[in-house]
Amino acid sequence: MENEIVDIENLTEKLLELISNKDVKGIRQIFEVIPTIDIADACNQFEDISKLVFIFKTVKSEYTADLFTELDPDVKQELINMMSDAELAEILDSQFNDDLADDIEEMPANLVSRVLRNVPKERRAVINKLLNYQENTAGSIMTTEFLTLLDSLTADEAIARIRSIGKEKETIYTLFIIDKNRNLVGTVDLDDLIFAKGEEKLSKIMNRDFVTVNVNTDQEEVANMVKRYDLNAIAVVNNDERLVGLVTIDDIVDVIEQEANEDVAALSHVAPLEDSYLDTSVAKMAKKCIPWIIVLLVLGTFTTMVLDKIEKSNVFTLVPVLICFVPTLMDTGGNSGGQTIALMIRGLGTKEFTPKDFWKIIKKEAMSALIIAAIISAFAFLWFMIEQYTGIVTNTRPGFSDPATGEFYTIWNGKCWNIDFFNGAIGIALTVAVTLFIAAFMAKIIAVLLPLGVAALKKDPAVIAQPLLTTIIDVVSLLSYLGIASVFAAAFNLM
Amino acid sequence: MENEIVDIENLTEKLLELISNKDVKGIRQIFEVIPTIDIADACNQFEDISKLVFIFKTVKSEYTADLFTELDPDVKQELINMMSDAELAEILDSQFNDDLADDIEEMPANLVSRVLRNVPKERRAVINKLLNYQENTAGSIMTTEFLTLLDSLTADEAIARIRSIGKEKETIYTLFIIDKNRNLVGTVDLDDLIFAKGEEKLSKIMNRDFVTVNVNTDQEEVANMVKRYDLNAIAVVNNDERLVGLVTIDDIVDVIEQEANEDVAALSHVAPLEDSYLDTSVAKMAKKCIPWIIVLLVLGTFTTMVLDKIEKSNVFTLVPVLICFVPTLMDTGGNSGGQTIALMIRGLGTKEFTPKDFWKIIKKEAMSALIIAAIISAFAFLWFMIEQYTGIVTNTRPGFSDPATGEFYTIWNGKCWNIDFFNGAIGIALTVAVTLFIAAFMAKIIAVLLPLGVAALKKDPAVIAQPLLTTIIDVVSLLSYLGIASVFAAAFNLM
Repeated sequence: MENEIVDIENLTEKLLELISNKDVKGIRQIFEVIPTIDIADACNQFEDISKLVFIFKTVKSEYTADLFTELDPDVKQELINMMSDAELAEILDSQFNDDLADDIEEMPANLVSRVLRNVPKERRAVINKLLNYQENTAGSIMTTEFLTLLDSLTADEAIARIRSIGKEKETIYTLFIIDKNRNLVGTVDLDDLIFAKGEEKLSKIMNRDFVTVNVNTDQEEVANMVKRYDLNAIAVVNNDERLVGLVTIDDIVDVIEQEANEDVAALSHVAPLEDSYLDTSVAKMAKKCIPWIIVLLVLGTFTTMVLDKIEKSNVFTLVPVLICFVPTLMDTGGNSGGQTIALMIRGLGTKEFTPKDFWKIIKKEAMSALIIAAIISAFAFLWFMIEQYTGIVTNTRPGFSDPATGEFYTIWNGKCWNIDFFNGAIGIALTVAVTLFIAAFMAKIIAVLLPLGVAALKKDPAVIAQPLLTTIIDVVSLLSYLGIASVFAAAFNLM
Repeated sequence: MENEIVDIENLTEKLLELISNKDVKGIRQIFEVIPTIDIADACNQFEDISKLVFIFKTVKSEYTADLFTELDPDVKQELINMMSDAELAEILDSQFNDDLADDIEEMPANLVSRVLRNVPKERRAVINKLLNYQENTAGSIMTTEFLTLLDSLTADEAIARIRSIGKEKETIYTLFIIDKNRNLVGTVDLDDLIFAKGEEKLSKIMNRDFVTVNVNTDQEEVANMVKRYDLNAIAVVNNDERLVGLVTIDDIVDVIEQEANEDVAALSHVAPLEDSYLDTSVAKMAKKCIPWIIVLLVLGTFTTMVLDKIEKSNVFTLVPVLICFVPTLMDTGGNSGGQTIALMIRGLGTKEFTPKDFWKIIKKEAMSALIIAAIISAFAFLWFMIEQYTGIVTNTRPGFSDPATGEFYTIWNGKCWNIDFFNGAIGIALTVAVTLFIAAFMAKIIAVLLPLGVAALKKDPAVIAQPLLTTIIDVVSLLSYLGIASVFAAAFNLM
């Protein structure tokens, strides 16, 4: 019994010691009391994989089956190379078809043919079929080892049948009931079967309100069904509505985590890692990180173009302090839109809503965007006044001051303008605050339209909508800034 | 049998029609063939909740138990108000303790006391205890309705015992085995029990390599244990190592999704929503969105300060085109650091690594940061040359050109400088590219140090590290820019 995750380093040393002492009893005892996944983690640390062979020869096959499944792909491949065909066949025999198909996908071609040579012909056919389903569909994650029972059986007969053949099936917690035409007509949870009267027919006990998914259904959709209907396993049917497999809840847990990681990755401009972070090589990491940064850098050129225009404009040349607020403006717009796009991408991802809910969403978002933009902009106005009074930013306009009065004058459009500091500070703070209002509001609206539009076109919003968002928001904010600054500068005698 | 999620709108209308016709048979039939969660969703749409009472009076209690659990909190509360104490007691009787505790947490005080008055005294004690566990711990998500069996029972005796009492327990797929001192000594999966020989003792069949969690263990940690060990349910023990509850895999699915949403929320600067997006009010949405934007706006003041300094510096006044690259610089630094911090926060969140792996992580990240920064910076150099040659940005320095040669001169530090365009373009592109290298590299290093540091202090890195990151990266990038520009401007005769 263990209260915490086992110390893998200690376990590795212990195992290596037992192996070099050929301590069969010691090794077997470890498998009795320590979870196999922890032992697999320890075995993955072995520098000399040949030592692993001793474990496979020593331990009961019920353990080695799990152990093999949990080994790292490279360890697995090295181990297969060291085994005789007979040993290999024995291990393969204990693997589930879907696990084996997953392994084969990662193996070099010579190993694949050796592995397939060592499984019986009928199994080979099933595995080949599993390998042909498109990635991330129900077909690609389903198991084909399920149990069907005829609806005419009684509970006692069903239990007897499960006892005689169930052990090789991946789950018996959900049983699929077929009629004499082999059509799927219901499901029975094992607990309901156990609690049923012995002579009751399955057709009486079974749930007829079950749901199924197609082999081509996206795995995220499958996960949503399993979650929504609180299932242990869901039936997968082909286009003829025939039962071809099932997906169990433990596979769903992996899907949910994988999809969450993909959403986080997309929102952070990095391609999703296939392996865990620590197992990803430096070269692979660079390959995952570089493309999006370069795309964004090129997309950012639009921002540079607008800023170049701004920087050469009359108003920004005469009131250069306005440039200092550009990052604040861009960041706030980006943050405001970023919040909404994250909510959209997670909501679409977890199927909490679909593009059909467009009007509900845009109404809600427009209302909250108004409130949020108004409050932020009001706060920003005060804060920008503080920035100017504390001298965090100072307004150094080209011009001259009247020695008699100390008042400041500047020349613009051939006229001489008197600039009052208080008036100027308000003018600047108001210019930025009003632009900020527009930027924060527009950002949220764009952040709704873009992902919902992309999703309506059946493309992945996380991958397409997110990179465009920042550029669009930046350009919209900066152009608004230029326009508003030109109007306000004249109105407030800023120049 | 349903292939897709049921059309809720249609179902709502159908139900309302059946209710107004008092069609008992029709309603019962719907419950037979449509999943209860879909019916609950339809009932949540009722404008007149009193109509729901008819359903509760009509349908078998095995359905109403689920139906009640799945109703929206406000519908649930209105319904309770409409029921007599006897009706309420009947419904409460069918609820699991953990579901009931969750409900009570959301109810107004007067309803809470009414609900607690209508459950038996012993149950009240259990619920009160559940309510006292800290949020997001194993205790707060566990169920107390579990089944323990003595290790001296045989398989047949165990099955008989399950049949006699199991129906009221939340799961019988994992059975917890205790010795005569009531110490937890093992677990038995129901399938193993079914496949075991009838006369075999549980002490023979049971897994002794099981894991447990403490009531105070964080739910994320519990989720990781269940995933890692591929469990249907995990035992929760108190500080005396006594079994007090269990957490089932369907609760874990919710935890994983909730934690993923929290990570996404934190990375996007929005407080996590408690309800689904569509159920969150506009006012609540504003409350979730505004605080972080304002914090970031205030933090952004540091960026403004640095930019103000830059904008007034000699080099930026004389080569104002350099200002145009500020957004590119800040965005690229932010994107580069954003990638790493997302990997860190997800990795720490899913317990893929801990702050103890610091050296492994910093080594990997430093290596890949070098490669990434070098490649991006090389690309950026070429791109910035293109930007200048295409006129996307143009260098309008104050100065004069020699009418005879067309060469351009400017005055700086009291000297007259000749500016060669090609030299100038290279100088500018190189200045920005080198700064970009430093920004992209430093950003990744800071994005490792910050979250791991915060996690080592046992604080949530998603909430604390992320907002600081952008500001630190911005300030570091801009200060580097100023320094590098000053050196390069002199070296390349830019000014």
